[in-house]
Amino acid sequence: MNSFVYDIPTKVYFGKNQLKNLGTELSKYGKKVLLTYGGGSIKKTGLYNKVVAEIEKTGLELFELSGIAPNPRVSSVNAGADICKKENIDVLLAVGGGSVLDCTKFIGAATYYDGDAWDIQLRKVPVKKCLPIITVLTLAATGSEMDAGGVISNPETKDKIGMGFPVMQPKVSFLDPTVTYTVNKFQTACGAADMLSHIMEVYFNMDNDLYMLDCVMEGLMKTIIKYAPIAMEKPDDYEARANLMWTSSWAINGFISGGKQHAWSCHPMEHELSAIYDITHGLGLAILTPRWMEYTLNENTMSKFYQFGVNVFGIDQKLPQMEVAKKSIEMLKEFLFDTLKLQSTLTEIGIDDTDFKVMAKKAAKGGTMYGFQPLDAEDIEKIFRMCL
Amino acid sequence: MNSFVYDIPTKVYFGKNQLKNLGTELSKYGKKVLLTYGGGSIKKTGLYNKVVAEIEKTGLELFELSGIAPNPRVSSVNAGADICKKENIDVLLAVGGGSVLDCTKFIGAATYYDGDAWDIQLRKVPVKKCLPIITVLTLAATGSEMDAGGVISNPETKDKIGMGFPVMQPKVSFLDPTVTYTVNKFQTACGAADMLSHIMEVYFNMDNDLYMLDCVMEGLMKTIIKYAPIAMEKPDDYEARANLMWTSSWAINGFISGGKQHAWSCHPMEHELSAIYDITHGLGLAILTPRWMEYTLNENTMSKFYQFGVNVFGIDQKLPQMEVAKKSIEMLKEFLFDTLKLQSTLTEIGIDDTDFKVMAKKAAKGGTMYGFQPLDAEDIEKIFRMCL
Repeated sequence: MNSFVYDIPTKVYFGKNQLKNLGTELSKYGKKVLLTYGGGSIKKTGLYNKVVAEIEKTGLELFELSGIAPNPRVSSVNAGADICKKENIDVLLAVGGGSVLDCTKFIGAATYYDGDAWDIQLRKVPVKKCLPIITVLTLAATGSEMDAGGVISNPETKDKIGMGFPVMQPKVSFLDPTVTYTVNKFQTACGAADMLSHIMEVYFNMDNDLYMLDCVMEGLMKTIIKYAPIAMEKPDDYEARANLMWTSSWAINGFISGGKQHAWSCHPMEHELSAIYDITHGLGLAILTPRWMEYTLNENTMSKFYQFGVNVFGIDQKLPQMEVAKKSIEMLKEFLFDTLKLQSTLTEIGIDDTDFKVMAKKAAKGGTMYGFQPLDAEDIEKIFRMCL
Repeated sequence: MNSFVYDIPTKVYFGKNQLKNLGTELSKYGKKVLLTYGGGSIKKTGLYNKVVAEIEKTGLELFELSGIAPNPRVSSVNAGADICKKENIDVLLAVGGGSVLDCTKFIGAATYYDGDAWDIQLRKVPVKKCLPIITVLTLAATGSEMDAGGVISNPETKDKIGMGFPVMQPKVSFLDPTVTYTVNKFQTACGAADMLSHIMEVYFNMDNDLYMLDCVMEGLMKTIIKYAPIAMEKPDDYEARANLMWTSSWAINGFISGGKQHAWSCHPMEHELSAIYDITHGLGLAILTPRWMEYTLNENTMSKFYQFGVNVFGIDQKLPQMEVAKKSIEMLKEFLFDTLKLQSTLTEIGIDDTDFKVMAKKAAKGGTMYGFQPLDAEDIEKIFRMCL
């Protein structure tokens, strides 16, 4: 069991009508606010107007960067950092889903660097400073609202790189479940798959660690499985949206990992997929995860699958371990592909094996991924093939 | 479902050999450190020497307040505040269990007040400032290491009053499970009963709230039930001590309560007991809790008991709700009185009904406690009598 440091200072306003506190929180950090957002859906839903009204009411000066894309590009990071430098921005306000939040974190960091922001992703420069960040979340999925990490894409090099620095942790996040009522069925399903994967990447491990955190993870997974279908069926079900939203934050804010230090498996593989094919991250994870499970299930690992099957899917604990393990994979597939109606193969979304070899090498970073089970490029390519 | 603000900024160093970071953390807040502790057990265990060595290594100036008693007295708060004022203390370092930590929080607050510290407990003065507090925890029980509250006793008035203010939240807490190896069987059991009660006070509620948090609470309760007996049997079992220690923090740091705002029930009743009879808080809670359950179980409340029985004690979900409910109380009694070997009645610990009427009135604060079920002084007196 490893030691760890727990440090999650983000303050969260959770629930309806919390935006009235936005102006007060922003003004703690200065006068000049850069509002960052995506393709404009927040204008359609009226959220943009509400946010701007709070900023104006507080007498803050507003600047804007819009057009941050899903799988956010380094070009947006550079554009944002340019505004911050030119206008002496005091505080960043990210309104959107994980892509907008991730991009904003790197804008905050790149403001203190004079070169191309991609250098940060390449670890050429350390990140020791970042503009303060406040977020208004519109999608329950990535957990970016309560962690210090983010993922940025570079379409020119076809790279997608994730990393994090403590200084990028949001100071305050506003989580209003009603804001997610307009998230469509597909994105709701992808968000559920994403947060489920965040938990599974930690839960499936060979370390002897805190039972307490395993129990918490099982509770979070059960919550996703219970409420994602309800939110898809009835988009304005407050209870479902609230449970999903708060679960998304706790799936990845660091609490559940405790002292576990092993590498993640499905996320690095998926990043290669969405770097080249620009697919939705959660969809890629949904296709990959059950195949990764099938590939890593063996006599040594089956006890963890058994625990997962019994405690998350309620499979009869009296059945043989291997039977429960296999059934747990089947039940996960049913959940992802039948209940959430996500596409179940790469073939279905138009991806063939053209790039598998290259992607597998990149994911393995020329060596071995030491996750739940060690995987080298050859293993990863096989898992990609299982997804066809 | 209510809205809420989540704000738990305490940084936690968890695990063995983390004290090497103590000097760095202390020196962030200044040069002059007031070390607070209890009856001197930290000298016997060697923890005192380790802490002082880190302080000296960092070149900080050390002041001391020892002798803080279980059920800490307002006299200690006044004594500590006097030292802080006279010596211009920069930062408080509490080394001990909940009593030392609670007392230190109010020392930090009383430093900024010129009258008797009891005025704070009487809510005569608001607490807006507090010296920064760092803690080294020696007992898994109260959760004071990660929350902003505390309980102080006044032997003269026989009052014991709990309250909290955000500024009293510890900045940093050091949780080393090996430090709790020397906690004896009785105190380990009382700690388990205390943290179990912290969760049950929140879990048993009539609000429709976040299922996700119910799942988390069930996981924490299962953890206590699994590991408390192991820690009693084998005091140096790291896994058991680690699970109990981290669970104690999360049982009361605010996360599990989400938007629930109802009053607690057993804690106010127990505070009256330990205010007069100076018994260990966890023992009082252990005796009270099953009787409070028996008193509040009815057709309207049984579904929550059913959920508790099935999900925490693994009772067969196919049994009738009332049967499961009653069985869950029996299983809790077995756990507290047979497995943890705590005394099961007030009579056994020498308490009779002499003060029940007065205590009941005080607990109800002259009205009704609006907890899981509303309880007035008459109800509370009946519950006290059930404990004889």
